[in-house]
Amino acid sequence: MSGGYFVGVDMGGTNLRCGAVSRSGELLLLRRAPAEAMAAADTVVANIAANVEAVTREARGRGLGAPRGIGVAVPGPLDLISGTVTATPHVSAWRSFPLRARLERALHCPVAIENDANAWALGEFWRGAARGRSEVVLLTLGTGVGGGLIVGGRIVHGIAGMAGELGHVTVEPDGLRCDCGARGCLEAYASASGIRRLVENRLRKGAPMPALFTDAEGNFAVKRLADAARRKNALARSVFELAGKYLGIAVASFVNIFNPELVVIGGGVSGALPLMREPMMREIRKRAFAAALGKVTIVRAALGGHAGVVGAAYTAAQQMRAVIARD
Amino acid sequence: MSGGYFVGVDMGGTNLRCGAVSRSGELLLLRRAPAEAMAAADTVVANIAANVEAVTREARGRGLGAPRGIGVAVPGPLDLISGTVTATPHVSAWRSFPLRARLERALHCPVAIENDANAWALGEFWRGAARGRSEVVLLTLGTGVGGGLIVGGRIVHGIAGMAGELGHVTVEPDGLRCDCGARGCLEAYASASGIRRLVENRLRKGAPMPALFTDAEGNFAVKRLADAARRKNALARSVFELAGKYLGIAVASFVNIFNPELVVIGGGVSGALPLMREPMMREIRKRAFAAALGKVTIVRAALGGHAGVVGAAYTAAQQMRAVIARD
Repeated sequence: MSGGYFVGVDMGGTNLRCGAVSRSGELLLLRRAPAEAMAAADTVVANIAANVEAVTREARGRGLGAPRGIGVAVPGPLDLISGTVTATPHVSAWRSFPLRARLERALHCPVAIENDANAWALGEFWRGAARGRSEVVLLTLGTGVGGGLIVGGRIVHGIAGMAGELGHVTVEPDGLRCDCGARGCLEAYASASGIRRLVENRLRKGAPMPALFTDAEGNFAVKRLADAARRKNALARSVFELAGKYLGIAVASFVNIFNPELVVIGGGVSGALPLMREPMMREIRKRAFAAALGKVTIVRAALGGHAGVVGAAYTAAQQMRAVIARD
Repeated sequence: MSGGYFVGVDMGGTNLRCGAVSRSGELLLLRRAPAEAMAAADTVVANIAANVEAVTREARGRGLGAPRGIGVAVPGPLDLISGTVTATPHVSAWRSFPLRARLERALHCPVAIENDANAWALGEFWRGAARGRSEVVLLTLGTGVGGGLIVGGRIVHGIAGMAGELGHVTVEPDGLRCDCGARGCLEAYASASGIRRLVENRLRKGAPMPALFTDAEGNFAVKRLADAARRKNALARSVFELAGKYLGIAVASFVNIFNPELVVIGGGVSGALPLMREPMMREIRKRAFAAALGKVTIVRAALGGHAGVVGAAYTAAQQMRAVIARD
């Protein structure tokens, strides 16, 4: 039973990361490829399978043997009972797609699937900022806002694996339109796409995005906006002020709901957390119960971009353990 | 091990209920007394002890023998680790009061304590609307709004027993002031006290509460307001419209957070649920993920006012089981 490794796949909107992860959660090797997320579902499955095979080949070359299990993290809500993707905001071709079954057919072995935000949370729980904790709220601020909940040392899945959509709690009932269609979700304020919209709303109508806020390719970049805010740019500062305020409103609700010992905030936008911390903490202090607030620490995520791969591998390890227990 | 019973105590703002509950959750006998909630903490403890003794005496008279355990539900957040009441909105004398230790000294036996809303939720889980379910959000709309969360078939306590404060999620950031001090909590809109304030805000400044909305003693009563709404009173209808809207905003967030199979709504105000259902469902449909919404049923609580007694007894039964398991 000792030795061996798990394969974790993290399918993002643009990148597919595929890695070999040891039984104790150490990332042994990592492969990056374009996600081809907008391709037909069959192409995506073939792409995942090809990358898993490339990783297992390389692992074999390094004397690691065969994988003990494979876990795949995909964006958007899953039905974990049926193994289908019910809807993914970023992969339009996947509606009611039987992902698990198709991957198992392509890979000739059992595959565990998990929502990408849950996989990220599990990575941070296994080896990152939430290691050894039992009551944790994890928020990842990326293109969208995802989340994961650890209760009693286990991830909360809900009745069909769709729990943890922390980006879609309402923080402003008549607020900005969210990509999910609703108004005033946390994601509409604290994600990269939400923050871009906050900037656009502050520009003159039809005005182009200022070069100050764009990267070398001319695309809006939160990182650039954060640089401008650090240099006291008033527009940039007001945007992070607002994003931090709504982040705080949501975190205060989570503290009152869960009485967590830890709140972990990660994702690309969390690089700007120092700019959001003051308005965030102001709302939390106003809204969270003092006794619960006294028990919680708010920290940055620790694993960076690899948490999803590690968490996907954890999902595979957990599923194997369940299978072993059932036998 | 068969036979025997548990004592459950539910201390409300006005009434103290104390009952004998069988090992399968059946309420065998019930005693009601004034809560004396505003008295000094020692008086409250003595009052609880006197009522527990009266119930055990009566149970002995009926040949039920001695209780196997005692559970006490108290309002407000508890620190379950230390067994102290950290703050109760309705019992001002109890701040950092070592309730469990004081009850154990008075009753000469181990006592389990639980937050009253959690006890109510556990009652509904053991014998009521949530029986046999594993992923449930329970909301009780009373003087305040309380809640309980069942995840994986267990109540969520958080790191110190303060989880489940579902009445204190923000539903309107700049909204009405809540009794907790924050603005725009669910409780400020969907509790009896919140609904009274919604009515007062619609009256001419300084105008007395219309007799149409008050009981025989001249006190505002949600039940009377509901009667008026059913007779098409415009003010009453607009208040339930608003309460229902904010209830829906909160429930939509809970559906996205937990992916529950069931949402249970109880408490005195839930008698007016038919008046709130339409605006509630409108918000839920706008805001909850369709796939998660398809998995959830929203129902009324089943046990009425006795759920807290049954749930307090369940807490005692669970604690005993833990003690047995440890031995």
